[in-house]
Amino acid sequence: MKRYSVGSDIPMPTVSRMAAYLGCLASLEQQRVTDVSSRELAQMAGVTPEQVRQDLALFGRFGKRGSGYDVGRLREEVEGIFRADGERWVCCMVGAGSLGTALLSSRMTQRWGFRYAAAFDSDAHKIGTHIGHVPVYHIDDAKAVIRRERVEIGVIAVPASSAQTVAGLLCDAGVQGIVNFAPVNIKVPQKMPVIPVDISQEFLKLAFCIQRARRREQEERLQIEAASGAD
Amino acid sequence: MKRYSVGSDIPMPTVSRMAAYLGCLASLEQQRVTDVSSRELAQMAGVTPEQVRQDLALFGRFGKRGSGYDVGRLREEVEGIFRADGERWVCCMVGAGSLGTALLSSRMTQRWGFRYAAAFDSDAHKIGTHIGHVPVYHIDDAKAVIRRERVEIGVIAVPASSAQTVAGLLCDAGVQGIVNFAPVNIKVPQKMPVIPVDISQEFLKLAFCIQRARRREQEERLQIEAASGAD
Repeated sequence: MKRYSVGSDIPMPTVSRMAAYLGCLASLEQQRVTDVSSRELAQMAGVTPEQVRQDLALFGRFGKRGSGYDVGRLREEVEGIFRADGERWVCCMVGAGSLGTALLSSRMTQRWGFRYAAAFDSDAHKIGTHIGHVPVYHIDDAKAVIRRERVEIGVIAVPASSAQTVAGLLCDAGVQGIVNFAPVNIKVPQKMPVIPVDISQEFLKLAFCIQRARRREQEERLQIEAASGAD
Repeated sequence: MKRYSVGSDIPMPTVSRMAAYLGCLASLEQQRVTDVSSRELAQMAGVTPEQVRQDLALFGRFGKRGSGYDVGRLREEVEGIFRADGERWVCCMVGAGSLGTALLSSRMTQRWGFRYAAAFDSDAHKIGTHIGHVPVYHIDDAKAVIRRERVEIGVIAVPASSAQTVAGLLCDAGVQGIVNFAPVNIKVPQKMPVIPVDISQEFLKLAFCIQRARRREQEERLQIEAASGAD
């Protein structure tokens, strides 16, 4: 299979949209849809068809079939960009609380080739147990286990107060990137990629959207009233 | 306290950044920092100072003190924009699996005024139990409970295959917005705000960033080699 180049200059919003397209393609495939136009893919992802074409063009020529794409083939090609096509990303989870446990059992990340080799916690009751198939080690053993298992990605699911200490530990141990679920900014060496995921901010965004929708409805009602008053 | 207007025309990227500023301000307050400049806030949120000023200006005049902001007061003012300042958003959780359970016990969403009045599941073993203080009802009772408890926000934490059915049920029951953790797009009436949260996409983004960082390192090495070869 052709490998698409991961340019060093692809902008982050494009990367986010490519991840979204991959989700859409996987969902189409599950529904046994075999062909998709850029217009249809755009509608699913909530962007313009021009945006889809422009994003894909940044990675080279994707296989087109007639007016659209072969769903399975495009899915494979986009997976290749993320190295989500079989080669595994080795991950570790720091924090085996309720969120850590939920993330460890998420089938979606497994689906895209992310495999947890270890989880770490400081709770003596959890050490030595397994969450799914993943062994739980004491946090003090993290550095040795991360090196032994050649962990590439560290996932932080500890309270905000411990997040910076954990981030330092992960960097020292040699992980190459971090997904941070702790609701706090962490400081890491400049070249270390970090993806912060603050779920509470998604709730705040929704709260704003609901208020905006209420406001729009109110404005429409006032306009209708004004129009009928002018009769 | 002065209420800031939630204009019907504030763009979504601004809303996302305002939510991020709120997170930064809360974290500064926890560290007992009392004053912050737009430059410092910008650095914490990973944007330019000009961006911070421009975003805040969209909402009116925030209280300035000397060269910066009073952290506590600005936090309160930004909270007001999200109605995250004491008035509660009433939520329900659909799906009491591992992710649903983790979300129900998240202190961060509680911190911003999101309160769960109910959880719904179809597993007979869970019905009638509580997760934290939140009662678990059968999904068949969702419509009645949502109306009785005046639930405003529905949170979907069920597998992709049931997400659309649940979304339809939530809309019928009269919720005003949805946070969707199922890795699938849901169709809802046009005016219903939906925030999709696909955690696996955050992992894909990190996978891309790691590859980009490796590529950059490789390019730098080649440049250095080429330069020393020219000597």
